[in-house]
Amino acid sequence: MGVKVISVLENILQANEQVAAENRARLDAAGVYAINMMSSPGAGKTALIEQTLRALSPQVRIGMINGDTTAASMDAERGAQAGAQAVHINTGGNCHLEAHMVRQALAALDLSALDLIIVENVGNLVCPAGWDLGVHARVVVASVTEGADKPYKYPSMYRGADVLVLNKIDLLPYLDFDTEYFLRGVRLLNPEVQVFQVSCRTGEGIQAWSAWLRERAMRNRPVRIR
Amino acid sequence: MGVKVISVLENILQANEQVAAENRARLDAAGVYAINMMSSPGAGKTALIEQTLRALSPQVRIGMINGDTTAASMDAERGAQAGAQAVHINTGGNCHLEAHMVRQALAALDLSALDLIIVENVGNLVCPAGWDLGVHARVVVASVTEGADKPYKYPSMYRGADVLVLNKIDLLPYLDFDTEYFLRGVRLLNPEVQVFQVSCRTGEGIQAWSAWLRERAMRNRPVRIR
Repeated sequence: MGVKVISVLENILQANEQVAAENRARLDAAGVYAINMMSSPGAGKTALIEQTLRALSPQVRIGMINGDTTAASMDAERGAQAGAQAVHINTGGNCHLEAHMVRQALAALDLSALDLIIVENVGNLVCPAGWDLGVHARVVVASVTEGADKPYKYPSMYRGADVLVLNKIDLLPYLDFDTEYFLRGVRLLNPEVQVFQVSCRTGEGIQAWSAWLRERAMRNRPVRIR
Repeated sequence: MGVKVISVLENILQANEQVAAENRARLDAAGVYAINMMSSPGAGKTALIEQTLRALSPQVRIGMINGDTTAASMDAERGAQAGAQAVHINTGGNCHLEAHMVRQALAALDLSALDLIIVENVGNLVCPAGWDLGVHARVVVASVTEGADKPYKYPSMYRGADVLVLNKIDLLPYLDFDTEYFLRGVRLLNPEVQVFQVSCRTGEGIQAWSAWLRERAMRNRPVRIR
């Protein structure tokens, strides 16, 4: 039975890769830069998206695709309220987004009116790591309240990140978080990763993160003929 | 392909139920009370286990089964250091524990020398909810730093809980956590759930939680003949 599961899973992952490649081609043709934002539940993905919209909008035209395990669309509503074209995906209990879900969401967005799409994955440090959604960068949001041991315990997620945003640094005075130990674990798994330390509450560090993102979103603006 | 997956998954879940029932019978025969502790990464499961050991050990004889996605056994080591018989399960990337993994761990513990087993699941608010491990109670650990919307967004986990431990309440003064809104969501999904509000850092609330657990662990001590 175990073998059966693995072969089915392999087929599914192959199919996912193909749809992901199609998503990426579609985004590239439209000149839209897209990121896959992943984290534990409550690390602050939605708050970071709100802050990013505040920093970049309307100069950078931003769309948001929000994945949740239920029909509860409060995160997408927060995104819409902050000025994004927002689409909510109900995964029906599924613990991660897959490329075909993002494909459906892309069809619901007006890509010609966007420079950047932020995909907010299901809050989960394990499962989303294995699924390419067809975006350009994977952004992991960690929060200092989760503890400094997380890279050591969830290596797949940290290994696959292009960018790491360490959030809630305003709470550092009230915690025993060892930033040096945390970052050592991150670098061990992923020496190339770009790190931003931010507080979505105070706004600290948001400018550096937003500048990084703006640069990529605007670089992509001219439509490329493939 | 979708249908194939579901039927395989159903077989796996049925097999899991059967092994879970065997685990429960084995624990009952040995007079050992067992709980399945689940949470987001970093909500404080290991810290709660350390505090519980401090409160109950050696009067209550405690074993710990710790599940992680990798070979990193630091949580089991923390449990052992705090005085538990501790077993580490490396799920090999799997996002949750299953009953057969707990069966293996039970075989590695001396049940006759235990009153209570705390199973620390993989940090994940989605996947572990669907898997019965054959224990007596499901304990969800939430932390105030995750935000008050979590019951609304991860209903399966909150609906299935017998006990909810809300951790890190020492940080409430520095957060915008709306306890009333959080608890309303919890009660909506799960009117019967037992709630404890604690801080593993200051020790607040640990006594009430530990007393609840002691009562169950000691009630179970006489070996029941089945």
